[in-house]
Amino acid sequence: MTVQYSLELIGTFFFAISGSLAIRDNHDDLFGAGFTGFITAIGGGTLRDIMLGAYPLVWIGDINFLYAVFAGVAVGYFFFSFLIRMRRTFLFFDSVGISFFTILGVEKALSLGVRPEIAAIMGMFSAVMGGVMRDTLTNEIPVLFRKEIYATACLAGAVLYLVLYRLGVERNTNLIISSIFILAFRLLAVKYRLALPTFKRSS
Amino acid sequence: MTVQYSLELIGTFFFAISGSLAIRDNHDDLFGAGFTGFITAIGGGTLRDIMLGAYPLVWIGDINFLYAVFAGVAVGYFFFSFLIRMRRTFLFFDSVGISFFTILGVEKALSLGVRPEIAAIMGMFSAVMGGVMRDTLTNEIPVLFRKEIYATACLAGAVLYLVLYRLGVERNTNLIISSIFILAFRLLAVKYRLALPTFKRSS
Amino acid sequence: MTVQYSLELIGTFFFAISGSLAIRDNHDDLFGAGFTGFITAIGGGTLRDIMLGAYPLVWIGDINFLYAVFAGVAVGYFFFSFLIRMRRTFLFFDSVGISFFTILGVEKALSLGVRPEIAAIMGMFSAVMGGVMRDTLTNEIPVLFRKEIYATACLAGAVLYLVLYRLGVERNTNLIISSIFILAFRLLAVKYRLALPTFKRSS
Repeated sequence: MTVQYSLELIGTFFFAISGSLAIRDNHDDLFGAGFTGFITAIGGGTLRDIMLGAYPLVWIGDINFLYAVFAGVAVGYFFFSFLIRMRRTFLFFDSVGISFFTILGVEKALSLGVRPEIAAIMGMFSAVMGGVMRDTLTNEIPVLFRKEIYATACLAGAVLYLVLYRLGVERNTNLIISSIFILAFRLLAVKYRLALPTFKRSS
Repeated sequence: MTVQYSLELIGTFFFAISGSLAIRDNHDDLFGAGFTGFITAIGGGTLRDIMLGAYPLVWIGDINFLYAVFAGVAVGYFFFSFLIRMRRTFLFFDSVGISFFTILGVEKALSLGVRPEIAAIMGMFSAVMGGVMRDTLTNEIPVLFRKEIYATACLAGAVLYLVLYRLGVERNTNLIISSIFILAFRLLAVKYRLALPTFKRSS
Repeated sequence: MTVQYSLELIGTFFFAISGSLAIRDNHDDLFGAGFTGFITAIGGGTLRDIMLGAYPLVWIGDINFLYAVFAGVAVGYFFFSFLIRMRRTFLFFDSVGISFFTILGVEKALSLGVRPEIAAIMGMFSAVMGGVMRDTLTNEIPVLFRKEIYATACLAGAVLYLVLYRLGVERNTNLIISSIFILAFRLLAVKYRLALPTFKRSS
């Protein structure tokens, strides 16, 4: 099990926690939490792979991703109050996951032979469309339109990765630089009130 | 024409009726009824097959499914008042269709070689995602979040089918037992106010 | 570069302008305009091709479509006030694009060997589903349900094309007749208040 694979699973786990928290305001049952956690964690990568015609979908071909979602939903459901209290810390992990997913999405698209412009869009979609689907299904204005800075950070990081890639920067170095760029962009935006955390308070 | 094939067409027909009724509150035209009937009847199976990469989609490969949708929409449109009066009876047929679609979705996914956990999700999606799409497009909170018991019944029935399948229960017997389980789960939920009918009154 | 190819690119450009204008009421940033412009211009054809299993998607296989979207978004963003003032003229171009997209969608579906009934639906989806996705994401009742005449025009034009095709009418003649039919249907509907323009005023 490589480092990258572990990180993908951990990212999926955090995404599922984040998704399951989002629904807790209006709906208290485990199934609702599971459904939104699943959509949030799986939606972006699923859309990317369907648009690229890349079958089987990651979570259909490798059952561990589904278990990561289940674990994330269970944690989100049973430790809800704790996670809400810890939401600054949680936001950090959520942002790490998003940063990493963006770059992995870019790399997957590139590996399938698409042009860099398309790869940048696919990277951003991987990271943000799960949340967009969650918000759309729960009948909210997608977070994307309330704080576009969120998706803009992903797109900018994807472009940065592609520029460094073109310049010949070594892959792991590039992955780290571009992910940190997205992370810093997003956390600074939150800090300076350019955007707000994705999940809601319970009150 | 096998019994199963007939039942699939009949299920599609009932789903289309149900979908066309859902829109009648706000929109009185035949096109709107047709669009929502189509999405409701076709949406879940389409999403399942796209996620599994199973082409051609059922309704694209076999035109009879489209005709079943058209027939259902016409019935829903022209017999609206009658169907609303008969909605207890109609709910029964709608529930039969949903139960059956769930198990057929599980079987299709299994036949494509996915793991049972994935097949259970695909079964549930087949049955409920058409309604979710309909509700999302018409800007309602999807019925899934108003009465999750509905989707929970499908998921539980899908898991039951897979357990019996593993235990070696004969396929037709299993299909009947699991479908009846979903049907009973849902109807009891409705009876004891755990959930409400999917379609709305005209008043 | 054939005439048809040029027209497809121009249609995409106008669709992207239309989509970027739609969002300007609530959101003033370039990213939001870009996202909605992209979804509006690309969404219908993407759904059509995914349902038909026609890979690669047009805009993934040919980067010029993405540039047409970017150009449309930039024009929509920077000439917003001018375009709103000119919206009667703009509506005309938007309608030309929709008419043309419908028939091209029908032709693409036919070329992939589906039946005419399916091709008609695919043609309509090509033209209208981008707008439906845009409206759904921005949490509005899709324009489809506020003025179904819009989609009905596309469906009627698609059927007309298929009837003329069956009657042996030459392809370019048919394309022109059917597109003009859709255009006239829609513009007359707007004129006689059967429907309203797609994009909103800034006030």
